[in-house]
Amino acid sequence: MAASSVWGNNLRISIFGESHGPAVGVVLDGLPAGEPIDREALLAQMARRAPGRDKSSTPRKEADEPEFLSGVLEGRTTGAPLCILIRNTNTRSADYQNLLQVPRPGHADYPAHVRYRGYNDVRGGGHFSGRLTACLCAAGAVCRQILERRGILIGSHVAAVGPVEDEPFPGPEIPAALLRRLSSAYFPVIGEGVEEKMRAVIEEARMARDSRGGIVECAVTGVPAGLGGPLFGGVESLLSSILYGVPAVKGIEFGAGFGAARLRGSENNDPYYYGEDGAVRTRTNHAGGILGGITTGMPILFRLGVKPTSSISQPQQSVDLLAAQNTRLEVHGRHDPCVVPRAAPVAESAAAVGILELLLQNGALSPLEGLGIQPERREGEAQ
Amino acid sequence: MAASSVWGNNLRISIFGESHGPAVGVVLDGLPAGEPIDREALLAQMARRAPGRDKSSTPRKEADEPEFLSGVLEGRTTGAPLCILIRNTNTRSADYQNLLQVPRPGHADYPAHVRYRGYNDVRGGGHFSGRLTACLCAAGAVCRQILERRGILIGSHVAAVGPVEDEPFPGPEIPAALLRRLSSAYFPVIGEGVEEKMRAVIEEARMARDSRGGIVECAVTGVPAGLGGPLFGGVESLLSSILYGVPAVKGIEFGAGFGAARLRGSENNDPYYYGEDGAVRTRTNHAGGILGGITTGMPILFRLGVKPTSSISQPQQSVDLLAAQNTRLEVHGRHDPCVVPRAAPVAESAAAVGILELLLQNGALSPLEGLGIQPERREGEAQ
Amino acid sequence: MAASSVWGNNLRISIFGESHGPAVGVVLDGLPAGEPIDREALLAQMARRAPGRDKSSTPRKEADEPEFLSGVLEGRTTGAPLCILIRNTNTRSADYQNLLQVPRPGHADYPAHVRYRGYNDVRGGGHFSGRLTACLCAAGAVCRQILERRGILIGSHVAAVGPVEDEPFPGPEIPAALLRRLSSAYFPVIGEGVEEKMRAVIEEARMARDSRGGIVECAVTGVPAGLGGPLFGGVESLLSSILYGVPAVKGIEFGAGFGAARLRGSENNDPYYYGEDGAVRTRTNHAGGILGGITTGMPILFRLGVKPTSSISQPQQSVDLLAAQNTRLEVHGRHDPCVVPRAAPVAESAAAVGILELLLQNGALSPLEGLGIQPERREGEAQ
Amino acid sequence: MAASSVWGNNLRISIFGESHGPAVGVVLDGLPAGEPIDREALLAQMARRAPGRDKSSTPRKEADEPEFLSGVLEGRTTGAPLCILIRNTNTRSADYQNLLQVPRPGHADYPAHVRYRGYNDVRGGGHFSGRLTACLCAAGAVCRQILERRGILIGSHVAAVGPVEDEPFPGPEIPAALLRRLSSAYFPVIGEGVEEKMRAVIEEARMARDSRGGIVECAVTGVPAGLGGPLFGGVESLLSSILYGVPAVKGIEFGAGFGAARLRGSENNDPYYYGEDGAVRTRTNHAGGILGGITTGMPILFRLGVKPTSSISQPQQSVDLLAAQNTRLEVHGRHDPCVVPRAAPVAESAAAVGILELLLQNGALSPLEGLGIQPERREGEAQ
Repeated sequence: MAASSVWGNNLRISIFGESHGPAVGVVLDGLPAGEPIDREALLAQMARRAPGRDKSSTPRKEADEPEFLSGVLEGRTTGAPLCILIRNTNTRSADYQNLLQVPRPGHADYPAHVRYRGYNDVRGGGHFSGRLTACLCAAGAVCRQILERRGILIGSHVAAVGPVEDEPFPGPEIPAALLRRLSSAYFPVIGEGVEEKMRAVIEEARMARDSRGGIVECAVTGVPAGLGGPLFGGVESLLSSILYGVPAVKGIEFGAGFGAARLRGSENNDPYYYGEDGAVRTRTNHAGGILGGITTGMPILFRLGVKPTSSISQPQQSVDLLAAQNTRLEVHGRHDPCVVPRAAPVAESAAAVGILELLLQNGALSPLEGLGIQPERREGEAQ
Repeated sequence: MAASSVWGNNLRISIFGESHGPAVGVVLDGLPAGEPIDREALLAQMARRAPGRDKSSTPRKEADEPEFLSGVLEGRTTGAPLCILIRNTNTRSADYQNLLQVPRPGHADYPAHVRYRGYNDVRGGGHFSGRLTACLCAAGAVCRQILERRGILIGSHVAAVGPVEDEPFPGPEIPAALLRRLSSAYFPVIGEGVEEKMRAVIEEARMARDSRGGIVECAVTGVPAGLGGPLFGGVESLLSSILYGVPAVKGIEFGAGFGAARLRGSENNDPYYYGEDGAVRTRTNHAGGILGGITTGMPILFRLGVKPTSSISQPQQSVDLLAAQNTRLEVHGRHDPCVVPRAAPVAESAAAVGILELLLQNGALSPLEGLGIQPERREGEAQ
Repeated sequence: MAASSVWGNNLRISIFGESHGPAVGVVLDGLPAGEPIDREALLAQMARRAPGRDKSSTPRKEADEPEFLSGVLEGRTTGAPLCILIRNTNTRSADYQNLLQVPRPGHADYPAHVRYRGYNDVRGGGHFSGRLTACLCAAGAVCRQILERRGILIGSHVAAVGPVEDEPFPGPEIPAALLRRLSSAYFPVIGEGVEEKMRAVIEEARMARDSRGGIVECAVTGVPAGLGGPLFGGVESLLSSILYGVPAVKGIEFGAGFGAARLRGSENNDPYYYGEDGAVRTRTNHAGGILGGITTGMPILFRLGVKPTSSISQPQQSVDLLAAQNTRLEVHGRHDPCVVPRAAPVAESAAAVGILELLLQNGALSPLEGLGIQPERREGEAQ
Repeated sequence: MAASSVWGNNLRISIFGESHGPAVGVVLDGLPAGEPIDREALLAQMARRAPGRDKSSTPRKEADEPEFLSGVLEGRTTGAPLCILIRNTNTRSADYQNLLQVPRPGHADYPAHVRYRGYNDVRGGGHFSGRLTACLCAAGAVCRQILERRGILIGSHVAAVGPVEDEPFPGPEIPAALLRRLSSAYFPVIGEGVEEKMRAVIEEARMARDSRGGIVECAVTGVPAGLGGPLFGGVESLLSSILYGVPAVKGIEFGAGFGAARLRGSENNDPYYYGEDGAVRTRTNHAGGILGGITTGMPILFRLGVKPTSSISQPQQSVDLLAAQNTRLEVHGRHDPCVVPRAAPVAESAAAVGILELLLQNGALSPLEGLGIQPERREGEAQ
């Protein structure tokens, strides 16, 4: 879309900024009023994404001190658009001078050059920089707090780095304690000893001046059944449209996902039963909490395939756009050999924004909260 | 979204109808005027999706005679909304009486019951029926013709049925002849002998009163570089939001997709070079023709994970919503043990709608075509 | 917009068809499920718009027998898209042959010719025909029933035809009985004897082969306070964006509207007071029930300026687009010398669609109705 | 809409900030890349709106020093979202303490209190403040420069203040020199001596502790014929949806508008003729450059009815929301007795944003500019 950095309908987020410009930021419009914002919790989520904490990420240190410019008064949302600004610091633009001429393989350099006819800001990736995910994290942290207050939890783990795989979620029901642990971890994994194996693979890639991809798996619990719709209004459409906004994501699957392609129907169908609380539940959750585009009340589960970081310092083949000839490229500067652990909080944040939009779209959470018109009910209808 | 069956911005498609109602149909608004519509080509695409052609699909025969109610005059689009109506025939509603009470595992029955508070039309799946994909095929066939006239081709193959895999596309460049062959086939595969192996797996599932899933892989060639944008306006977001509208799809990946998670950056990055025609191309296409959300000019490649058909006639565990107790369910009626071959033309159709929207959004194809205001150009800018 | 005949977000209506094509129709997506549809009441609203009832309108008789193609089962909405189809009959295309060449002044002929590059269907006005308002009436009739069930009433009167003015609404509060009388009238006026005077002016115009415009004033009662928002999400923006979809409307004003330009602030400000029912009300309603884009709980009031019918049989100056020279044009055929009385039910219908969207957008009417997540409330907050 | 402060599709503007918060600002997404931004011209437009220049406006002085946070590099747009931030200074919040309790008649206080359940920022009007129009002016100034570069000019005049009326535009064609003069004036009027008469009326209102409304008339020249569409995609719908975002606007009319209600068809229809340049033109412009929702190539003309400033210092009747009883209110502080002259640049700005969106939606101005796919043309088609 021409207006590419805006997402949502009832809730709208609008992200702006370039890596080496004065600031990056995000505007959230459509938030319910009166929601307390816990600044510390927000900073904690942003810190999970921030680079420079250890050897698995880029040494660039970002201050990431968010400034609330609007939409918050005395610690609560006002209902007006909420703008969070993050000033850029510690930018070294000299590293990126020749990108206008020789595009980096795997980066947006070349298509962006065509798209913006050479006028885009290429310094540090410009508006395509991973830096912009700080805005998504800030927005997601706000939405996450609103959701948690209503019993909706979001957590994710690094399901794979290269060939090393984490253990899966323990069963169709996911304990709140596990999600809370994962959603506060810097390198969230379920299995013991997994982080160390993954870090070893990442370090090996760094030493080889190479990079590694992986998989992030995310769960959302507490979403009531009955949200979404068939065809294009399905939860998968909604969530994938925001999740593909996370840089480096090249695949998204829900529940059993591509694995369902190898299952038989008798294996993949999730049997229904009544839980002890009287709610309809399923004994497995291959559907990932979504059937016919509508939530089933089971946890929403999705996995993101994250490609290996495009920035590597090995020599690569490219083209010289000014000389119009083939050439070789060697990129120097600060690179993160594996963004997967940092992609986890970004994925959770995108999910938080997406789920809040889902609730608002479906009237499950009204900005008016309780002021609505009362309906008539038919005898014997659902719930 | 509350309005779930409408998709697009500059081009809008609106799908309506229920499996056992009077008709299903689709409205396309925003089409350029003066585009010839080849009715035979449209019928051929719809026939690829229609059931009842052979043992691998349901025995129900649909007439699928589309009626153009508006938007076409003397064989060309008028620019006004184009409505295609398909009357329903051969419906046997008696088969579906108890679905209100006992939801089928893997189907939308239960979440739809909650969503619509018991008022939804459950006969034959109602608005959730695969029957609605006939509308998507019709819409896609219209868009495909407009795209082909501008050198954009779309084709797909059944990349997998259960454990049987087809050969991949032959290389980063995909021959037009191959796409044309695939996009007119009823069971499109690339490799020789693959169809027979896949049919054997499907027949085996049928005999076991079970079903099979698989993977559809689709390619779009001829899309110019420079379309799309970063963050939420990326081509992956756009396409996945319509592709997840295809029933039974639980995973979507672009290019190397989840496979990229196991590659190193040095393997996954696609090296640039100048082609003989002077265009910038890549030696591999792990990016699937999209970097930073923007087209690179290489073929757009994506894969859909299709779950096994939920309708199986084996006994299954479910719940009785009226008695509020667990129960067993045995479903009779006409079922398709594997929808993957029929999902291929539907995926191509969704892609055709998506790509036409992409062109219109980016002004690459203007409904005014040539009436636009002329821009100023800067010396030395791209192209 | 390229996709011009679709409106709304949470509720979407999509209108299709051409005056002399096979049919016109409308799809409504996003309706709550379980709403009874009273077919007779719908036909009654459509009859108010239909031409050919008396000398003040065109002699062409339309059957206007709407067919429900989807979204309704056993007389109630299913929650799936609701499609209403109206077949065209009694079309005499021969009257319109030279419109391709010589555009009628005041009609869309010329700009549509440019817009659609000569491919648009000009017969009977094509997609620009007033015939399409039958679809809006049908859609509005469905929405109106949903609103009435929740205490929201809509009615309008012919406030002016040429120089003849009707009496205004009697005061800030508008009796339900008056709105019910107006919204079932074919020529709705408040004052006694006004209809006869207006008919005389219309008849005079007909005899002079000329036409007359006028003003429709509409009221909506029962909308709760607190819906809408500042800037672009205001109720005026929402309603005007659909009301300008009513052909021939060239002006829209809310409350005192342009008249407020001549008032002083001390006159125009509506004083607040507590009503006997304990609700906050205003002693005047110059705001038309909207302040800062948000409903005040007072009746929503708006007026539409309707231009005189463009089709007149007097000779007029025009151009011959093929010969590229000035020429004279004489239009024959069936013309309505004043569409204002028929515009009243169309305006009410557009308002009904708009207000239902407003309720859904704001979560005041949830498609889930009662399934939503419960909020926390702060001590002492509003209501 | 829940997300109320975002507008547009292909071009999106997102406004944030509150009158007494740290800052107000606007994000524009979807701008074409490579457009030079003239900062001085932008400041000049913002200065026209700023208060405190003379006795006809509020004595509060705003610095209004806009900071470009993103989207501009070396003086040209990058194609990424452009964010303009304006810090708030000189705020005296003490004046507004009791607004939470006693809403001001004619203001958004009461409905906003209900809408946001008491959590909205009421200081200085919060997000409802006229201060937010500074953002619209900044956004409009950017768009206006892009339009001017393509021959599209926008200008407006104060058509009325209370009973004093300005002269109308001189004829159907509007000289560029006149528009340039008006669009740089602080109190734009066409007739000689009109400003003085209007200022006298405003001063009289100030002395009476009262306020005055009026009418702004705006013209846009150079928009090509063929943009827009029927029904809801008409230019009137598009423009009114953004123009009603200008505070205090209660009426919008195009061309003859409500005046057309008193004309006969033979008077109101605009006769076509071929101009000396070979273009189709009309001898009058009652249509305001729009027929059937589509531009005719004639100037787009519209008028805004602006209500008298709600803030007056006379005692007024209101309610005490905490005590739940009627009361009287006396407002002190800085008030502008007539915002009409300052509304003129805001109206022009909203029009500039709207017209740029119109061009982008219709592909008349492509962000790719020249990279698009070439169409086929039919012999003898329009232009």
